[in-house]
Amino acid sequence: MHTKASLPISLLDGKNTLPIIEAYFEFNHLKQLYRQGWLQHGIEPKHCESVAEHSFCVALLGLLLADQYPELDVNKVVRMALIHDLGEIYAGDFTPEDNIDKNHKFELEKQSVLQVFNKLPNGWKWINLWEEYEQGSSAEAKFVQQLDRLEMLLQASIYEQQLQVDLSDFFASTGWDVFSPELQSIFQFLEDLRKGNREAGYASPK
Amino acid sequence: MHTKASLPISLLDGKNTLPIIEAYFEFNHLKQLYRQGWLQHGIEPKHCESVAEHSFCVALLGLLLADQYPELDVNKVVRMALIHDLGEIYAGDFTPEDNIDKNHKFELEKQSVLQVFNKLPNGWKWINLWEEYEQGSSAEAKFVQQLDRLEMLLQASIYEQQLQVDLSDFFASTGWDVFSPELQSIFQFLEDLRKGNREAGYASPK
Repeated sequence: MHTKASLPISLLDGKNTLPIIEAYFEFNHLKQLYRQGWLQHGIEPKHCESVAEHSFCVALLGLLLADQYPELDVNKVVRMALIHDLGEIYAGDFTPEDNIDKNHKFELEKQSVLQVFNKLPNGWKWINLWEEYEQGSSAEAKFVQQLDRLEMLLQASIYEQQLQVDLSDFFASTGWDVFSPELQSIFQFLEDLRKGNREAGYASPK
Repeated sequence: MHTKASLPISLLDGKNTLPIIEAYFEFNHLKQLYRQGWLQHGIEPKHCESVAEHSFCVALLGLLLADQYPELDVNKVVRMALIHDLGEIYAGDFTPEDNIDKNHKFELEKQSVLQVFNKLPNGWKWINLWEEYEQGSSAEAKFVQQLDRLEMLLQASIYEQQLQVDLSDFFASTGWDVFSPELQSIFQFLEDLRKGNREAGYASPK
């Protein structure tokens, strides 16, 4: 797993501190954890976003978009977006190339989430919220799962233009049926934008 | 202003797109904008966090901490934390070393916030929330202002140990009176941690 540094929590070994400081030293690692899919597609570390950066943009998209859908609890969407990748602190950021069994990945990430939240007051609340996201067991969970993909595609379309790389794989693996009708219009505009760029000679496929 | 790349919004010049995609291409720049204070204190770009990474951790701290204070609206705290640095998209990340006039900084950042939110439905809501934060005109705004400092100090204490740099300036410029009694205990633990590290020979001042 490519990271900028090892887990900051190891800096607290043998030290007496507060649960919230320990939790911070844990989730700070998401600033150091590269989104591995980009590295695997030739993006250099100096350009590659971290899991924290991705999560920030998912939460912000959630805030601005969910606000338009009265059937969604926007606060739940934002909370879920903020914690949706906390399983990666100890498990790392697996990609389809890792070919890891889905249940095994879930168990590793759940251990990570338990490790972070069990020490905090009301930790069970965040653990349950993370499980709800993972299982897609509510409208908000399904929405954040879509935003997670959408944010990836938005970032991909920026990298394609900035770095002249071909990230078609990310678009090819995301079918239309992933998105609800409301988000499909964003996906469509993004596809048109890429098509226009390709025709203009930018980001031409390898 | 040190950034990883120029503003992604320029990639959309002359293209027909959606307001939310434009807004995304604007706030995506916070992934590319280094927190300039670290660079000014000798942290190399390859280790330096972005404004997006900082904002993510402020929002997560807000979620976990505000939940403990019944007098605070935790949802407002989280929303405010997410957007608190959106003024930096076009204005950049000024530090005390820039010696910029406070009102001039506010005006530049407000222009940035207006530019991003004016095109969105209910944009006025986020503009008002950002102004509330800037002016510290509610309990939630004062709390997020404290979290903004606290997250900086938590990150400083990690950099000091990881990179063996002296970031005393950041602690020296943050008086006790910045924090409410609840957050002072975290500040105190952080000071004790640094003291212990100094005595053990880590992160010794220059």
